[in-house]
Amino acid sequence: MSINRQLILESRPKGLIAPGDLRLVQGPLLDLQDGQALARVKYLSIDPTMRVWMAMDSYLPAVAVGEVMRSFGFAEIIESRHPDYKKGDRVTGLTGFQDYVVLDKSKSQSFQRVPKIPFVSDTVFLGVLGINGLTAFFGMEIAQPKKGETLVVSAAAGATGSIAGQIGKIRGCRVVGIAGSDEKCSWLVKDLGFDATINYKSADWRDRLAAAAPNGIDIDFENVGGEIMQSVLGLMNLHGRVVLCGLISGYTKEDPGLASFGTVLVKRLRVEGFILLDYIPRFMEAATQLGQWKMFGKIKDRETIVEGLEKAPDAINMLFTGGNIGKLIVKL
Amino acid sequence: MSINRQLILESRPKGLIAPGDLRLVQGPLLDLQDGQALARVKYLSIDPTMRVWMAMDSYLPAVAVGEVMRSFGFAEIIESRHPDYKKGDRVTGLTGFQDYVVLDKSKSQSFQRVPKIPFVSDTVFLGVLGINGLTAFFGMEIAQPKKGETLVVSAAAGATGSIAGQIGKIRGCRVVGIAGSDEKCSWLVKDLGFDATINYKSADWRDRLAAAAPNGIDIDFENVGGEIMQSVLGLMNLHGRVVLCGLISGYTKEDPGLASFGTVLVKRLRVEGFILLDYIPRFMEAATQLGQWKMFGKIKDRETIVEGLEKAPDAINMLFTGGNIGKLIVKL
Repeated sequence: MSINRQLILESRPKGLIAPGDLRLVQGPLLDLQDGQALARVKYLSIDPTMRVWMAMDSYLPAVAVGEVMRSFGFAEIIESRHPDYKKGDRVTGLTGFQDYVVLDKSKSQSFQRVPKIPFVSDTVFLGVLGINGLTAFFGMEIAQPKKGETLVVSAAAGATGSIAGQIGKIRGCRVVGIAGSDEKCSWLVKDLGFDATINYKSADWRDRLAAAAPNGIDIDFENVGGEIMQSVLGLMNLHGRVVLCGLISGYTKEDPGLASFGTVLVKRLRVEGFILLDYIPRFMEAATQLGQWKMFGKIKDRETIVEGLEKAPDAINMLFTGGNIGKLIVKL
Repeated sequence: MSINRQLILESRPKGLIAPGDLRLVQGPLLDLQDGQALARVKYLSIDPTMRVWMAMDSYLPAVAVGEVMRSFGFAEIIESRHPDYKKGDRVTGLTGFQDYVVLDKSKSQSFQRVPKIPFVSDTVFLGVLGINGLTAFFGMEIAQPKKGETLVVSAAAGATGSIAGQIGKIRGCRVVGIAGSDEKCSWLVKDLGFDATINYKSADWRDRLAAAAPNGIDIDFENVGGEIMQSVLGLMNLHGRVVLCGLISGYTKEDPGLASFGTVLVKRLRVEGFILLDYIPRFMEAATQLGQWKMFGKIKDRETIVEGLEKAPDAINMLFTGGNIGKLIVKL
């Protein structure tokens, strides 16, 4: 217990994360001071936005070189001199890529205590009831879906996309998912109830997309950007809405994700960028609704779990090579 | 009177309009039938969107090769067998590039009768009370300007931009205009009351733009696209609004106007494409307000007038080379 393994940002990645970009170091755990609690990190949430944090300032400052890699995670308090936590408490927040995290009253951290729910995995607080569920929830609120409209979700088999699509179904939309393998597409249709899916690695995917949206597209829940977004925009109906949730196709490129604003103009689309941080005061409201949907089977989820802190860098890369289905988590 | 000169689309332009792209032809005027009126075209409105009409389908189908070039214009009825018009009536609508236009009850044309206003030039119905005024009016409505916010207008010395900026001043915004010459910039500040202007042909225009918006940019009334839009987006405040009115920098290029959606995402911007046609039922409401503002000197305008139908193709090119200040009109 006296050793804390940490993954430190050693160099900013170009393209996928290379072996030296995150370096594993071992440091001693200092004795707890008054106002501190020590938590054992049990799960790390692996999200595309982490690749952006490694490279540049965005809605959060970039991770500084030499610092522990920032990540969301789930942890359990094992020792406490902190007035707000006792041993056994379970929290989610920015744990970082490390075995242990110190919660410190004097620092502005934003850990949230989470309950133990019988028969439900703790990882639900990283997925359906965590970043991804909340992102899908508020993103679909921006989309203002109406019954009978056609919703297209890119990266549909990802943690956020798979929930956004299911919310679309709950709202009465025709939901078309774009994903990168037949296995993913099959999961979306058979298990999650998507109306149609497109494997964008098939040669005729653009034609299939058009065929899957015979009445055009009203809402684009956009997670990918680039060529995929461009094709979706081309099929959108007048006055359609684009919820810009992510642009993963550009995160590993030097060149930022470019796309044409011409279609936005000619089709009078409304494109709205959106970051979950703006909705913090409404997290509980959203989580209550998401929890209900999950309990009644209206939202189903799936996880890809990788074991071991040392595998976390490869886990990030999996997001960009398409290796995961649903929520990607590293178990420590 | 028996000859109608027309400019016909001979070939779709690449880049600027080349001498052969529009061809002047002379045809006889056929006798009027019942339900028809003959109008003498007096002024042609020259607008950037015409270059798009020459090249491709957009919010209107492209002009067919062999057809009269489409344009907005002002005309006066000189002979009528049409129940809705009498000799002397004055109309605006899609006259096309020709000396005479036939208004035909059996065709769905959308001419509007306009009054004679004492001491006011007829061309006001092509500018402040026409396409440009209406576009600026509804575009600024989408922008939802609040007192004290910073509005940036690109192509600010153009017919639409110059009015949009003045509406921003009426709404209490700090208004920064981007234009392509010192003369234009000087007009915007001295005559129209813009707070600051940037000549984008100066070497340090990006720094000047940043300096002119010390509190960041809340609204981008975008007429240009490309590099200029990119620089404006980079200075926008969180949750800013982009009214996508035009993308003129891309209209003469093979490559469509590309820009990065990354900024839209990270800054949670709302980008809304917008075409005036959607607001037809509210034209009178807007024109009433615009007319009042013009009457009380709250909106000032300026025209660049080119004489002769045969000069109309060069006039379109002027829009792309920056030759006009304010509304560009061809007088026949």
